[in-house]
Order: sequence, then C-alpha cells, then structure tokens
Amino acid sequence: MLDQSLLERLQGIVGEKHARDDMEARVAHSYDGTPMLQSLPDGVVYPETTEQVSEIMKLLAEHRVPVVTRGSGSNLCGGTVPLQGGVVLVMHRMNRILEVDLDNLTATVQPGLITQAFTDHVESLGLYYPPDPSSMKISTIGGNISENSGGLRGLKYGTTKDYVLGLEAVLASGEIIRTGGKLVKDVAGYDLTKLLVGSEGTLAIVTEATLKLVPPPAAKKTMLAMYRDLQGAARTVSRIIESRIIPATLEILDNPTIRVVDDFAKLGLPRDMEAILLIEQDGEPEVVERDMEAIRAVCLAERADRVEVAETREHAERLIAARRSAFTALARLRPTTILEDATVPRSRIADMVRRIGEIAAKHQVNIATFGHAGDGNLHPTATTDARDAEEVHRVEEAFAEIFEAAISMGGTITGEHGVGVVKAPYLEWKVGESGMAVMEAIKAAFDPHGLLNPGKMFAKDRRKRVVIQHG
Amino acid sequence: MLDQSLLERLQGIVGEKHARDDMEARVAHSYDGTPMLQSLPDGVVYPETTEQVSEIMKLLAEHRVPVVTRGSGSNLCGGTVPLQGGVVLVMHRMNRILEVDLDNLTATVQPGLITQAFTDHVESLGLYYPPDPSSMKISTIGGNISENSGGLRGLKYGTTKDYVLGLEAVLASGEIIRTGGKLVKDVAGYDLTKLLVGSEGTLAIVTEATLKLVPPPAAKKTMLAMYRDLQGAARTVSRIIESRIIPATLEILDNPTIRVVDDFAKLGLPRDMEAILLIEQDGEPEVVERDMEAIRAVCLAERADRVEVAETREHAERLIAARRSAFTALARLRPTTILEDATVPRSRIADMVRRIGEIAAKHQVNIATFGHAGDGNLHPTATTDARDAEEVHRVEEAFAEIFEAAISMGGTITGEHGVGVVKAPYLEWKVGESGMAVMEAIKAAFDPHGLLNPGKMFAKDRRKRVVIQHG
Repeated sequence: MLDQSLLERLQGIVGEKHARDDMEARVAHSYDGTPMLQSLPDGVVYPETTEQVSEIMKLLAEHRVPVVTRGSGSNLCGGTVPLQGGVVLVMHRMNRILEVDLDNLTATVQPGLITQAFTDHVESLGLYYPPDPSSMKISTIGGNISENSGGLRGLKYGTTKDYVLGLEAVLASGEIIRTGGKLVKDVAGYDLTKLLVGSEGTLAIVTEATLKLVPPPAAKKTMLAMYRDLQGAARTVSRIIESRIIPATLEILDNPTIRVVDDFAKLGLPRDMEAILLIEQDGEPEVVERDMEAIRAVCLAERADRVEVAETREHAERLIAARRSAFTALARLRPTTILEDATVPRSRIADMVRRIGEIAAKHQVNIATFGHAGDGNLHPTATTDARDAEEVHRVEEAFAEIFEAAISMGGTITGEHGVGVVKAPYLEWKVGESGMAVMEAIKAAFDPHGLLNPGKMFAKDRRKRVVIQHG
Repeated sequence: MLDQSLLERLQGIVGEKHARDDMEARVAHSYDGTPMLQSLPDGVVYPETTEQVSEIMKLLAEHRVPVVTRGSGSNLCGGTVPLQGGVVLVMHRMNRILEVDLDNLTATVQPGLITQAFTDHVESLGLYYPPDPSSMKISTIGGNISENSGGLRGLKYGTTKDYVLGLEAVLASGEIIRTGGKLVKDVAGYDLTKLLVGSEGTLAIVTEATLKLVPPPAAKKTMLAMYRDLQGAARTVSRIIESRIIPATLEILDNPTIRVVDDFAKLGLPRDMEAILLIEQDGEPEVVERDMEAIRAVCLAERADRVEVAETREHAERLIAARRSAFTALARLRPTTILEDATVPRSRIADMVRRIGEIAAKHQVNIATFGHAGDGNLHPTATTDARDAEEVHRVEEAFAEIFEAAISMGGTITGEHGVGVVKAPYLEWKVGESGMAVMEAIKAAFDPHGLLNPGKMFAKDRRKRVVIQHG
C-alpha cells in the first residue's frame, strides 16, 4: 500500500478515482502476459495528460518510489511486472489519436492507444502502419514502442522502431523532452528517439509518439507451402531471399504447432507435414503475381509436398489468423506456456530448428517452434506446468541452451520480445561485459536513482554462459 | 607536436611511418570539407587493425590526449577538425570489405572503405546499398556512419542508419564492444548500434560495420519538371507524396542553382525557370512506368512549364550528376561556399523556400537553395568571401534566422550533415535544455574524460534563440 499522504497527493494530480491502492487494483497489475511472474505494486495510477505524468514523476522521484509504466501488459518478458513494488502507471486513458497528417504521412498518438484500433483508423484513411505484433488486438502503441515490437510483416517492413519519428517523454526527474518530429531526416544530436524505442520503460515514460505511415500495398497474395522435410522448409527461406525477393511475410510452423493450430482453428491443415511456410507478398498486382510464381518455384525445388495459394481474401485471412493463433492454441495444451524468442541470421534457420529439436529431446521437454522465419526470429514454445518445479527447471535449462546456440550462430537472445526480467540473466551473453557496462552507464545517465522499471534488463544474478560444443 | 615518448609508443603500435607529428601531416589534417575552420592536431596516426585502435585508445586515455577519428573529412559541419589538438586517427588503411554474405544479404566492412567503391562492389554482385551521399566518390563508410549520411535516394530508401545492422567499436577506455549482428531484429538491451550511428565520433571509434543490402531495383526512370513558379514546384512535392507515391529521388534546384549547375555541367537547362524538380522512380518496370505517368500528371496540374523524361540511361545519369555537382558548381562562384542543411516537414517546403529568399534579401546575401525536397531537407548555400568579415557576419545572421524558421515550422537544424562545430551553438534550439542535459549525460557515460572528438556537438557558447514573428 502507498503511504497515505503520497496517495492523496497522487489523487490531487489525477483525481481521486484514478490513483488507487486497494487490493483489487494492485492484484490486477501484479502480473502481465508472462507466465510464472507476479509481484504486487503498492498503488496504481491512471494519468490522463503528459503534465500529470510529469507531476506524478516529480512526486515519485522526491519520494524515491519506483514506477512501472504499462499499457495492456501483453509482453512476454515480464517487462511490466512491478518487481520492486511502487506505482504502476497505466496508460489506457491516454489513448487518443491526436492527428493524422496526410501531407507528411505521419500520425501523432498517445501511448495507451490499442494497436489494432490505430491500424484500422489509418487504413480507413487509405494509409498503412505496418508493425503488427501478434497481440495487436490488445497491445498498445506505447507498449509496442517500449518493446520495439515486431510482427508478421517485419521482414519487408521492419519493426516499430522503423516507424517512430518523434517522441514526447517524461524523464525520471519529471522533466519533459521532445525528440525528432515529423521529419524523415534529423541528425541534431544523439538519436534519443531510437534509443527510447525498445528501452522497456527503463529510461523514460513515453507520453506521445509521432509515427510514420506509408502508402498501402495495392495487392496481396497468401500462400502455404507444406513440407515433409523440415530442412527443405528452412532452405526455402534462404533461397527466396537469395533470389532477391523480400516477401511481406515468411513464417514457419513446425509439426507440433501445425497440429495444435489445426485443432484450434479447424483449417484442415495436413497434420503429417513436418513444416508449413506461410508466405505473403504485397505490392503492385503484377509484381505480387510474379514474385508468388517465383516463390512457388523455389518451394517446389526444395521439395515442398504441396503449395496452395489462397483463392480469396477470406481464405488468406483465415490462414494468417491461424498463424496468429499459434500462441493461444499452444496455451490450451498444458497449464503453462513459455514462448521464447531466439533469433539467428536467416541462413542459420535450418540449423537452429534442428538444434531446438535436439535440445528439447535431451531435456525431455515439449517444444513447438514457429516464428518469423524470414527474420531468423523463432519462437520455440514450451508447454509445461508451473506446479511441476522439476519439469520447469528442465524447460529453463533447455531454453538456456537454446539461447547459447542462438548466440553461437551469430544470433541474439531476443528478436522482438525484449529483455525484461526473463532475459536479463542472459543479456551479457549477447552484449558482453563492456556492452553491459555501457548500457548500465546509459541507464544511470537517464535514471540516476533507478526508479524507472527497476529490475528489468539488468539482472542482479547473471547466468554464467556455458559454451556447448555442437556435434 | 606530440610528446616524444608518446609518439614512440604510438609508433610501437602502428609502425614508425604510421604515427607522425611532422608539420606536413599535421597541416593536412587540420581542416576538413567545412569552410573557415582550421586547428592543428599534435599528431596523426594511421591504424590498420581494431586491436591497434584499442591499444592507441588505451594509451591516449592514459595520457588524456583527445582523439578525432576521420576518413576523408568530406563532412560539412567541422566534424573532423581537431579543435583541441591531440591525435587525428585516419582510418584509410582500414578499408577492406571483409565479407559479402549472399545468404543473409549483409556486408561486413572496415570504416575506411570509400562509399563508391563499396556500392560498386555490391552492385557487381547484383545487390544494392542505397545510401548515396553527394560526396560518395570520396567519403568513407565510417564517415557516413559517424554522420548518419543521407543522399539522393533517402526519400524511398532511408539513410545510413537504416542499413547499419551491427558495429564493432572501440570505447574511450580502449575496450572493444560489438553491437547487433547479421540480424534484422535484435532487442537485446539498448540499441547501441543506432545510438552510435550519427554520434559523430563523440561516443566511440567505429572499427567495423555490418551493413544491410537489398535487392536492386529492376528498372529506373528519371524526369525533370521545370517551373516558372517556385511554389508550384514545392506544391508538387507534397502532392506526389499525398497521391501515395514515394519516388526514389525527389530533388529541387532553385533558379540560382540552375544557372550555376548549367554553367558547370553544360546541360542546356532552361535558365529562366524558377525551379526544377529532379525526380527518379525505381522498381519493377510496370510500376515505374505507372508512377512516372502519375507524377507527370501531378507536375502538369501544378503548372510545370516543361516535363522531360530522360530517354537514355546516359541522359539520366547526366541529370543526376548535374544535381550532385550543385555544391561544386556553386563553389566556383566566390571564394567561400557555406552549404547548410535545414530540414522541415515535407509539407512546409514551399514556406521554407520562400522564407529563405526573404531572409537572404533582408541580410543582402547570396543564397542558392537546392536539396532533397521529398525529405524536406534543403541545402540553402551561401556564396561569400571569408576575408570579408562583415559579409560573413551577415551570412551567419541569415543562417541563424533560417535555423529559427526551420524549427518554428517543426523542422530541425540539420537533416543529414550533423552538428559538429558548426551547428553546436544551435543544438539546444532543437532539443531543448532537458534534451541537452540527457545528451551530455550520455556523452559522459561513454567518454567520462571527454577525449573523443571534444568540442563537437556540445558548444561552450550556445546561441540564444531569438524567436522571430513571421509576417
């Protein structure tokens, strides 16, 4: 619970009902989309304006109270669990689209805006905002910015960072900064915009964002390629890019994922296939046709068993929806689902998928793998039971080995889900001791008292990296 | 001159002839592409490996000797002038292409590589590296990274930052860090890669870069649209983007620029036009045709006097070369050429060009304007004489007003040339007092003793911003 006088001062800023420390509010904000993590905050505050956020932050800085800023909490890295208590700042009231600028192709929005609501609005104006995390129906733009969210269209269109042109943010001191603007080019000083995107609420509180919009593609086609041989699917991914085609979407689902997705979405997928690639291309109609023909040829050359092009938009959307449902579908299997995010250079996808299988077998855990194959960004997903400590331990050991394998292939511990609590013990594996020192110095420069999302990104206990020789 | 024992230790690292403090070497590295700036370094060192850079940096840190890292010094912000003496580190010996990875579409290069040599090599392999600063024949990739260089293809393809996937860099302490990798997605910690790109050698010394390559466009067309009315040209820029077409190149030249470019390049340009737009589109042939038709229609609707499509590739290249020659051509007019870099939201191009004309007239200075209209990135260029202190003062006052106008239109003081010495007094106008404090804290986090390119970005004397009411 909050100190009574502090609560009253917070209520003085946002109004009585928007600053709470009742148990209901605290429990509701003690966890996020990440399994097996929970920690009670002392209070929950719902600001409505940037000025309120600034006032709140000044007050909390004065009292040295930690702050975790969140939207819908759909992240999978424990990024919004209030590990050290303090205040959870919920941004849902700041959810307005402030402007869509049709001259400059920009939109200026508040962070609590739901991603899907934003993309729907933008598309109704004949424009396009590509970042499309799987959680977009509930995720917020602010959350997407904090985590630098990717999505299914990332291969061709990039991730959230590529679409953030400017930010308004409140610093740990309560001061307000503005970075960038409606400018496609700006080199005035260090790039604070791109530094804040993906900083997981540890450097500042984003209160407004100016986003880049693009012209929408005129046409789109969707294809499924099915393989009895997983390596053939993985090779197809490399061969498509090597043939100088960048599809909008290039996703892979392995056999365990195919089975549960089909149970869930009733698509009549062939359950005996080792892998399915879901491929979309968009753009001008002739180009889409030509690219899809070329892609089909690559799939067949790599011994795809079947290649099906969606005949209608509805069919295509059902296929995409099925891929988006992978996490939900897997989550029905067993009580606890741990979705990971290892990423490798695209050329190593085949090696990585094989390694994941070997590691799962070695530790006797169930791991289904799907993900953004074109980005090299795989989501090996363990289905387990949090009540079985011994099994959970095996799952954790398997994931540690998976991260180690990713790094030894020139990859990273997280492609799009962020570090948060879950990956913090492993961050040094990727960035090294000097990299950690630089990041800690940046953190201290922004937040000398460690009030912004403490315990995230920088772990007290770092895992020792055991380099495993691969056979 | 360097302390004799320090020189000897530097020579011990790089070899005798690669560490010098003779007057010839010092004078040759006392200036860069920026007019009216010169400062003698104490010595010049030419490293060949990352390990040498690390050793050099450890030694210089121990002796608290400042370091300015440079390639060809073609920047226009005084970014590589050794203001506080010390050592100039010349990267030209580290100029190798270490790898082109055709599977992952990446290249790994050393910083001293000439940009044009790199793009030529990449194109010979059937790939494409879009950043194309006007200085690309002499500029280095390392310089492009330090300044986050743009170019003529920036509108569609973005700037250098969009193509840097990973870096190796030496910190002020001599430690070596590695950021990113051959990964299109990586959210492991703060984005040091994008922070270092554009940091102008003030945070670390880049020793290797992994760059993203893309498939080359299949076709390209080039068009000139000529206007008797400058506002019509500016409106055309907005209308093209509004019509959901993003050309590869969308450049503007005003009348003074047209005249000198034509004198220089002998293209037979119509010297009575107020403005010319140079427009390129690339991509699949049908799309290029269709876009160019649509663009032509926009030009004519905005009362272009003539629209000409280049009939041959050679003709197109002559037109592009003419635009690239604008700086050189203007530089022939008078002894001193000051090329500026004010940037506004694209929709304000017309207002900005008009304001530049008014400001030039008010201060009775010659300013020709050209630039990347599609990016809102204008290069108002004053031709003057450094020996005439009174006139130079008027030029400086005019530019201060131009920066003020850019910022009041939601723009920035530099779109692609960087802050360096020249813009340092104005940086606070764009980023505010809190923004300056954050940037200074980041600088201190990386470089506590202020050894890396001191005097750049952060000015001792900041200009007071006088907000001028526009009629």
